[in-house]
Amino acid sequence: MKKEKIPQPTIERLPIYYRSLLQMQEEGIKTVSSEDLGARIGINSAQIRKDLTYFGEFGRRGIGYEVEGLIEHIVRILGVEKERKMILVGVGHLGTALIRYKGFTTKNFHMIAAFDSDPDKIDQDVEGIRVHDLKAMEEMVQKEEVDVGVITVPAADAQRVVDALVEAGIKGILNFAPTQVVVPQHVQLRDVDLGVEILRLSYHLTNS
Amino acid sequence: MKKEKIPQPTIERLPIYYRSLLQMQEEGIKTVSSEDLGARIGINSAQIRKDLTYFGEFGRRGIGYEVEGLIEHIVRILGVEKERKMILVGVGHLGTALIRYKGFTTKNFHMIAAFDSDPDKIDQDVEGIRVHDLKAMEEMVQKEEVDVGVITVPAADAQRVVDALVEAGIKGILNFAPTQVVVPQHVQLRDVDLGVEILRLSYHLTNS
Repeated sequence: MKKEKIPQPTIERLPIYYRSLLQMQEEGIKTVSSEDLGARIGINSAQIRKDLTYFGEFGRRGIGYEVEGLIEHIVRILGVEKERKMILVGVGHLGTALIRYKGFTTKNFHMIAAFDSDPDKIDQDVEGIRVHDLKAMEEMVQKEEVDVGVITVPAADAQRVVDALVEAGIKGILNFAPTQVVVPQHVQLRDVDLGVEILRLSYHLTNS
Repeated sequence: MKKEKIPQPTIERLPIYYRSLLQMQEEGIKTVSSEDLGARIGINSAQIRKDLTYFGEFGRRGIGYEVEGLIEHIVRILGVEKERKMILVGVGHLGTALIRYKGFTTKNFHMIAAFDSDPDKIDQDVEGIRVHDLKAMEEMVQKEEVDVGVITVPAADAQRVVDALVEAGIKGILNFAPTQVVVPQHVQLRDVDLGVEILRLSYHLTNS
């Protein structure tokens, strides 16, 4: 697998294929054509066939793709079979909702602790996850070899928290703070800004 | 402005420019070069200049772009100056966090009501927003001419809720349910699936 050849949009679509295939598996569907998969997710079938060939997956004419086989393949590509440790920083409303969110665990991302600087929150439990003093964050990231930090702090604090996590050896950041943070090239960053999402929706509402 | 000529990636970047420009305005910065803006958000300056020319904005050599003028321009393009009404469906943990989220209001999206089918939640207030019986949803969307529905229901309920909203005349959907929903072409849809985001991060952690 020559990863430098896989286009970014293909990588972005892979989790969407995975999500639909898991739903099909639950429904008891054994094989799927690129047309049926495409109809479910609103992507044309030629694109799906092209995307999957990057990973060496080829459907069989008249039969399509084996759902289970394709899932196993995508699990390996996405690295879902690997257990990863995660912490959350900033136990506000969104942080609390994310601690309670089950969709991380099903993808083998395990929340092991949360951090905040508010004395009222420190040493409390949220859904079985202990909230620690922010000061203890770097030590835990190093000691537990935490993979991913979920950032739900105010914009003004985000870069400082990210720098501390990077310093402590974090490998990835999922940033919900409404600001751009900077990470060195060896650290993976994904931004989820609800404000940006609503503005994109606003554009399409305005210009349609 | 010929909107059919604006590429999708340019539209996706515009809210990110807007967010950075607002931060610069707060910092008292009056003018900005495409290089400085690019450095803040990790996009190369040539791309920024190209994106902005789609909207008729040209920086001046040696001076750059006027921050305030550029903000006003982007506000118009994104349609932020228009007041919009929003409802939320599914008052779980994530739904509650989104009701409390301030970033919608600052972009002129005003949450006017929430809906749930749980009798324990109905007629309660969350951050001043009344939770109504799901059965009353369609009537309110019609009567109040609600623009956007935020969906935070379980995956299994999502399409049914979306269909009811579409039937009632909703213009846009912000879908947080972890499933693909289908809308007619005249309705704008944005998906925010945290499970998909964590899988994208997983890919990059695995293949870097």
